[in-house]
Order: sequence, then structure tokens, then C-alpha cells
Amino acid sequence: MHVPEPDASRDLVLTRLINAPPEAVYRCWTEPALLVQWFAPKPWTTPRASLDLRPGGACTVVMADENGTEYPNPGQYLDVIPNRKLVFTDAFVGDWKPSEKPFFACVLTFEPENGRTRYTATARHWTREDKEAHEKMGFHEGWGLCTTQLEEVAKGL
Amino acid sequence: MHVPEPDASRDLVLTRLINAPPEAVYRCWTEPALLVQWFAPKPWTTPRASLDLRPGGACTVVMADENGTEYPNPGQYLDVIPNRKLVFTDAFVGDWKPSEKPFFACVLTFEPENGRTRYTATARHWTREDKEAHEKMGFHEGWGLCTTQLEEVAKGL
Repeated sequence: MHVPEPDASRDLVLTRLINAPPEAVYRCWTEPALLVQWFAPKPWTTPRASLDLRPGGACTVVMADENGTEYPNPGQYLDVIPNRKLVFTDAFVGDWKPSEKPFFACVLTFEPENGRTRYTATARHWTREDKEAHEKMGFHEGWGLCTTQLEEVAKGL
Repeated sequence: MHVPEPDASRDLVLTRLINAPPEAVYRCWTEPALLVQWFAPKPWTTPRASLDLRPGGACTVVMADENGTEYPNPGQYLDVIPNRKLVFTDAFVGDWKPSEKPFFACVLTFEPENGRTRYTATARHWTREDKEAHEKMGFHEGWGLCTTQLEEVAKGL
């Protein structure tokens, strides 16, 4: 599976060896009932997710903070290769309708590695400023925590 | 074939009944040897085009003015439905690598209509300002002229 060559000035990358097969990790990303279990870093929650899993299909994941205030994340799938790759972005909101602001596109790859999964998330931004803002928002800590939560769900499948 | 519901504030639309079947119009958009015959409004020319026709594939079309000065247009395909629909954008430059500036995404549909083609090009911008700038750059005249040139090529196939 093709992992993007990172652009150091605009990409943020998380990679992790997950103790579950690619099929399980992929299910955690693509089945709403599984995704809501791990997507937000606790104690935040994910009240619901709507996933139209096809290129051009909308994906909206709603997170909530400890007070129950909701934060919708509208986006769209760009490329879907079952069990191997998912590409999505907040630059479109479904059927190629541009969003209010293109912030990033995310390339996820799920590579088999001795029965486990080499999981790589590449967050690609349009500007260096947005990459830096994403980093300051806590990309590495947040995605790291969520990946640990994801692994727990995937191991139970 | 699903034609996008236009967003009046950010989309520009050209629609035309072309006197050739959808298969011919689609070939004009997807075969470099045909595309270079009509893509630039004359007397501009299209010295070359490189088209990796798949979602995530780069498409670069180079136009030239009357002095031979070249203007490359790097972009990428988003969705490809043979003979019916093409979606591409300048927001990515291939393999989902963000471009310098997302300006627009274009949805082209080719619908059969009594042996001819209902051809619709919807240019979708991220901002109202970019839509207005595109309009001032001569979207309607330019795309209109090129569509006439395209029809000439398609009729000869």
C-alpha cells in the first residue's frame, strides 16, 4: 500500500504498529458503531457518526466535550480501498461540494506486518500555517491517545 | 448521471447540448491527443497534456499564449465514471498532495440526449471571491469558446 512521501513543511504523520489485523483496524474506521467508541480522546465522547463510505460520500463525526457541547466535523471520503487505505478531507462536505475552509486531507494506510497492522496517518495541509496550528492544537497527543483507544477496540474484534 | 445542485454563491455553470454522443465528448476530455486540439481558447494553444485518469491521478495541462509563453495547470482527478462523469480539482496535484492554493473543483457530466450530449460543467469554488474572480477572468466566454472547439473535435470522431 502506497504511503505518501511526507512533505515536512505541510504534513503531520503518526505511525504505529497496532496489535490487530488490518481488517479490524479498518472496521474501526468505517463502522459507525465501532468508530464512536474510540474517535474522541477521553473524556470527550463521540455521540454519533454518519459515514457514506465511497469516494464523494459525506462523513460527519460529531464529538462532544465533558459538558455535552457538540462539535460536528463535516467531511468527505476521497478514496476508499477496503482494508488497506482511506483518504478523506474537510475540504468537501459530500458530492464534491466545497466546504467553508479546506484545512487538511488525511491519508490512512493499514499495512499487514506479521499479523499486526502498520498504521500510518498522514495529515496533509494546504498551508504551513495550518500544519503548525494543527500541531499546536495537539495533533500528536490527540491522535496518539485516540490510536491507543482504537487499538483497544480493534483487539476485541 | 447526478449533476450537482448549483450553489449560486460559489458555483459557475456552463451547460450545452453537444452534437456528438457522450462517448466522443468523454474521449475529448480524457485522451491527450484529442484534448490538446480544443482545450485552450484560440489563438492560445495546448502544447501538451499529461492525464493519469484515475481518482488520485495527476492531470497537468499546459497552455501557451500567442508568444509561446507556457502556463501549466497542475491538478488531479477526483472521480472518474467512464463516458458519464469526470471530477477534477486544482486543490491536489496527484496522490492527494495539496496544491499551493485550492481554487476550484470541476464536475463534468455527459448525459445522453437523443443521440447528442447534455454537457454540464460545474466549477465549484471554496469562496465567493474566487467564484467572482473566475467569472471576471472570463469563465463564461472562455469555457463557451472551448466548448465550441470541443464540439468540433467530438463531431469528427
